[in-house]
Amino acid sequence: MSTADLARFSVNQMTVRQLSLPDLVDACVALGVPGVGLWREPVRRYGVQAAAELVGDAGLTVTTLCRGGFLTATDPVERAEALGDNHAAIDEAATLGTDTLVLVSGGLPAGSRDLRGARERIADALAVLAPYAAQRGVRLAIEPLHPMYASDRCVVSTLAQALDLAERFPAHQVGVAVDTYHVWWDDQAPAQIARAGAAGRIHTFQLADWTTPLPEGVLNGRGQLGDGAVDMREWKRCVEAAGYTGPIEVELFNERLWARDGREVLAETAQRFVEHVIR
Amino acid sequence: MSTADLARFSVNQMTVRQLSLPDLVDACVALGVPGVGLWREPVRRYGVQAAAELVGDAGLTVTTLCRGGFLTATDPVERAEALGDNHAAIDEAATLGTDTLVLVSGGLPAGSRDLRGARERIADALAVLAPYAAQRGVRLAIEPLHPMYASDRCVVSTLAQALDLAERFPAHQVGVAVDTYHVWWDDQAPAQIARAGAAGRIHTFQLADWTTPLPEGVLNGRGQLGDGAVDMREWKRCVEAAGYTGPIEVELFNERLWARDGREVLAETAQRFVEHVIR
Repeated sequence: MSTADLARFSVNQMTVRQLSLPDLVDACVALGVPGVGLWREPVRRYGVQAAAELVGDAGLTVTTLCRGGFLTATDPVERAEALGDNHAAIDEAATLGTDTLVLVSGGLPAGSRDLRGARERIADALAVLAPYAAQRGVRLAIEPLHPMYASDRCVVSTLAQALDLAERFPAHQVGVAVDTYHVWWDDQAPAQIARAGAAGRIHTFQLADWTTPLPEGVLNGRGQLGDGAVDMREWKRCVEAAGYTGPIEVELFNERLWARDGREVLAETAQRFVEHVIR
Repeated sequence: MSTADLARFSVNQMTVRQLSLPDLVDACVALGVPGVGLWREPVRRYGVQAAAELVGDAGLTVTTLCRGGFLTATDPVERAEALGDNHAAIDEAATLGTDTLVLVSGGLPAGSRDLRGARERIADALAVLAPYAAQRGVRLAIEPLHPMYASDRCVVSTLAQALDLAERFPAHQVGVAVDTYHVWWDDQAPAQIARAGAAGRIHTFQLADWTTPLPEGVLNGRGQLGDGAVDMREWKRCVEAAGYTGPIEVELFNERLWARDGREVLAETAQRFVEHVIR
C-alpha cells in the first residue's frame, strides 16, 4: 500500500465512528490517508472551528460534510427549522474548508403518501439554499438513497431523480452524490452517471458494498469493500468515464466494524480500497 | 362489505399462511371472497389435483400460482434443475386452472457481481419455458422485486427491466406482475404500467403496503393495506388506466399477521381492501 495507492482515498468519519476526531486524524496521518469525510454531529461536539484547525494542521482534505437535507416537511415551523439547520450546515462546511455538503433529502411526513409532493418541496428548499451555499463556496450534493429508504429517510431514490432536481440549478451550486450502496442495483445508473459527469455534477463518489441479510431497520449493514455484490472497479470506471477525477470516499455504516478497534478498521478499509478499487 | 365490493378481491395464500388449504377455502366462501392466489409448497403438500378440486368445488378462482423462477444459476446442473422445476410449476398451474404463474427471477449466484449476465440468463430460460407454458394455457408473469432483494432473490428490480425481458416474447406468453410493495417508490412505474397495459402484459396486480422499520432480512414486514406509505387507490387507478380489469390480489408477508387467527386476518384484509382500494 503506497502513498500513490491512497492518493484518492478518503475515509468517511462514520466508517470508524468509534474513533474520536483527534484519533481519526492521527490514524489518517499515520496511514497516509489524505482525505476525510466529516459528519456534523461529532464535528459540532468537538467544535467546528477547532475541528477545522485540527484537520487542516494535519494536512488532511475534508472531502465532504455529511449531511444537510431533510427538506420534505409540510409544517411551516418544521420547514423553517430545516432551512435554518441547512444554513448552519452550509456555514459549517465553509468553516471546515470542504467544497461539498451532502444532502439526504428526507422521507414522507407522518401520514403522507405523496412522494411527488415531497420531491417538489425539496426543489423549493434548494432554491433558497443553493445560492447561499454558492456564496460560501459550498456545493450541494443531492444523494439518492436506496429505494428501501424512500418512506422514512429519502424520497429521492435514483440518480435520475436527483439530477432532475439538481438540473434546476447551476452545476456549481447543486450536483449529486454517487454512492455505490444506493445505486448498484440500478441499470439506469451508468447512463445517469454519464449525464451527471457531462454537466460537472458528480460532487462526490462514495463506496460501500452490498451484503445480506440486511439488519433490522436496514441502516447499519453496509458491507466492507469486497465483501458483497458490488463491482467496485466497474463503478470507478463508470464515474471516471464520466470525467470524475476527485476523491473516493468509503462510507460504511456497520455495527460489526464499529465494534472493532477503529485504527484496525481504518487500516483494513484502506487495504480493501487498494485491493478492490485501485489495483 | 358487499359481494360487489369484493368482486375483484383475491387473497394470496401467504397472507394467511396459518390457515390450512381447506380452512382457507372455507373462510373465503364464508366471507364472499371470490379468488385465491396459491403457493406451490402448501398446494403440493395437499396434493395438486386434490387442491384443484377443493378450490374448484368451492367456486373459487385461482388468480395466480406463486411461484416459479430462480433462473439465474450459472452451474449447468443447477440450471437444468431450475428449468425442470419451472416445467413442474407450469404443470401445477395448469392443473389448478390458473392462467398465471408468477416468476421471481433469482438473485446473483454466490460470489458473482454480474447483474447484467444474470438478467440475460433469465431471458435464456424464458425462451425455453414460455412456449411450454403457452401450450398449457399458462402465462408467465415476471415480478420485479424491490431493489433491496437484487442480490439474493431477484435481479429484476423494476417494471422497466421486467418488460424489457417480457417483450422478447408474445404477450400471451410472458408479462409482468405489478406489486405495489415492490414498485411504489419508483417514479417510472406509472409509465411502465402504461407500457405493460398497452401490450396486454399486466398479468397480475398485487397489493401490499410499505411500513417501516423493516425487519431483519426484510422479507416479512409487508404492511396491511392502509398501514403504510402506499397510495392504493392511486395504483389501482394507474393499472386501470392502462386497461387492467382483472383480480386484485393482496399478498402480505407479515409475522404479526401470521401470529393472529387466520380467519380474523382474512376478514380484516377484505375490510381494508374495501376501505383503502375500492371505496
